Amino acid sequence: MIMSDSAIGIFDSGLGGLTAVKQLEKVLPNENIIYFGDTARVPYGSRSQQTIVRYAEQDASFLLSKGVKMIIAACGTVSSVAADLGNVLPVPFTGVVEPTAQAAVNATKNGVIGVIGTSATVSSKSYKKAILAKDKKFKVYQQECPLFVSLVENGFISEEDKIVQLIVERYLEKLKNIKIDTLILGCTHFPIIAKAIQNYLGDEVTLIDSGRETAIYAANMLKQKNLLNKSTEKGEAVYYVSDTVEDFRKTAQIFLGQNDIEDVYHITL
Amino acid sequence: MIMSDSAIGIFDSGLGGLTAVKQLEKVLPNENIIYFGDTARVPYGSRSQQTIVRYAEQDASFLLSKGVKMIIAACGTVSSVAADLGNVLPVPFTGVVEPTAQAAVNATKNGVIGVIGTSATVSSKSYKKAILAKDKKFKVYQQECPLFVSLVENGFISEEDKIVQLIVERYLEKLKNIKIDTLILGCTHFPIIAKAIQNYLGDEVTLIDSGRETAIYAANMLKQKNLLNKSTEKGEAVYYVSDTVEDFRKTAQIFLGQNDIEDVYHITL
Repeated sequence: MIMSDSAIGIFDSGLGGLTAVKQLEKVLPNENIIYFGDTARVPYGSRSQQTIVRYAEQDASFLLSKGVKMIIAACGTVSSVAADLGNVLPVPFTGVVEPTAQAAVNATKNGVIGVIGTSATVSSKSYKKAILAKDKKFKVYQQECPLFVSLVENGFISEEDKIVQLIVERYLEKLKNIKIDTLILGCTHFPIIAKAIQNYLGDEVTLIDSGRETAIYAANMLKQKNLLNKSTEKGEAVYYVSDTVEDFRKTAQIFLGQNDIEDVYHITL
Repeated sequence: MIMSDSAIGIFDSGLGGLTAVKQLEKVLPNENIIYFGDTARVPYGSRSQQTIVRYAEQDASFLLSKGVKMIIAACGTVSSVAADLGNVLPVPFTGVVEPTAQAAVNATKNGVIGVIGTSATVSSKSYKKAILAKDKKFKVYQQECPLFVSLVENGFISEEDKIVQLIVERYLEKLKNIKIDTLILGCTHFPIIAKAIQNYLGDEVTLIDSGRETAIYAANMLKQKNLLNKSTEKGEAVYYVSDTVEDFRKTAQIFLGQNDIEDVYHITL
């Protein structure tokens, strides 16, 4: 039996999913969270489909072993390539694709939607398929932005940094010319450079943050299944990583915007 | 017994080591080569020391299972962090650090040497220690350039690309101001953007390519041990990767400068 006071499990190939944790803490402040970042095997975005599916199954199994009541794949790559994962799990599951696609459809006015993500996410066409399944009238244009992940992880994140500006322009020029009015940030790393992206595209383009939309979607799922935590205390987050805890602490603050991350543990899958 | 007509084994965390294969084929055209690229677990450069050592041992074991007569760790990260690997192998072994450090010492005139590499390589101070072990008079300055790997793997390699130029400048400005006259390219990816680096630093700085120096060093090792292949036929190269063969083919041409790579096989470690 699934218990409402159990934690929500979130996993990602690395640390990008922490942007979703941050959003989840805003939307559901009383929930406990167990995060798993597969930092020893990051990045997933450049790997083959079969490898990504195998890794995702292992990640979810680990969270189940911790007794979570729900699993969120806070990773655009996993959500795109291993979308069937939910069918074999004994707890509610969501990736980031469906919630994000729905938010984009709600936001667009001219029906022209852009999607940016890793190479694996774009190759899978997952967001595009999810949007067109709602209505074929939408025009969806994709662009892979593989360098964005490295930029963020290496601290190139300021919207005033000429390097960030030039790479944003290089990748997004076509989408700007096509006159998208909505852009899905289809990778959990991308919200970190949202300002640079917004500055380049202009305020007339709405950015859709997959972490934020997925947090809202997960909250609704739990509510419908009567699985929201009834506690009124602030929830706690515990972090597990497959590479060292030290490296996690160093990078995690980029994503969480806080330095005082206490409960971090190393595990080997 | 080690046979002189066996192949030379080379491994790397991914595809960067292919620059060393290219150099080895120039220096020793009659040798057969077995390459292993751990593409399912790349990159090693941002991982912890214990993880890198474990991976390197597995990589070397695979090559031994193929009956190689020598093993080259064509990876700055492995050579820096898992330098003791050679002590436990039953065949001659070299990483890239010692050959490259020696070449830098031979090349410098003013004794001021720069080293660039991944975060793990720079943290290990491996090149710096190897140079100072030869003579304490040298001044060695290090700079980690983690974004270079992603640049190369995503095709940002032209010396005329403003993005490449700006990132080179950002990372190398301090080394230029210090007036190094020799720069170790301490990662097998970096020779691919050597032109951009040379343009920024000027012709007065000598670039040391770790792949090239290691190929020359390996040739001398085999000669001394009477293990050079006596065949006068052109040697053959066989490639093994831990992620898919398709992804290998796509990226390998950046490093090898050829499209017709035939013998590529997938293995799971």
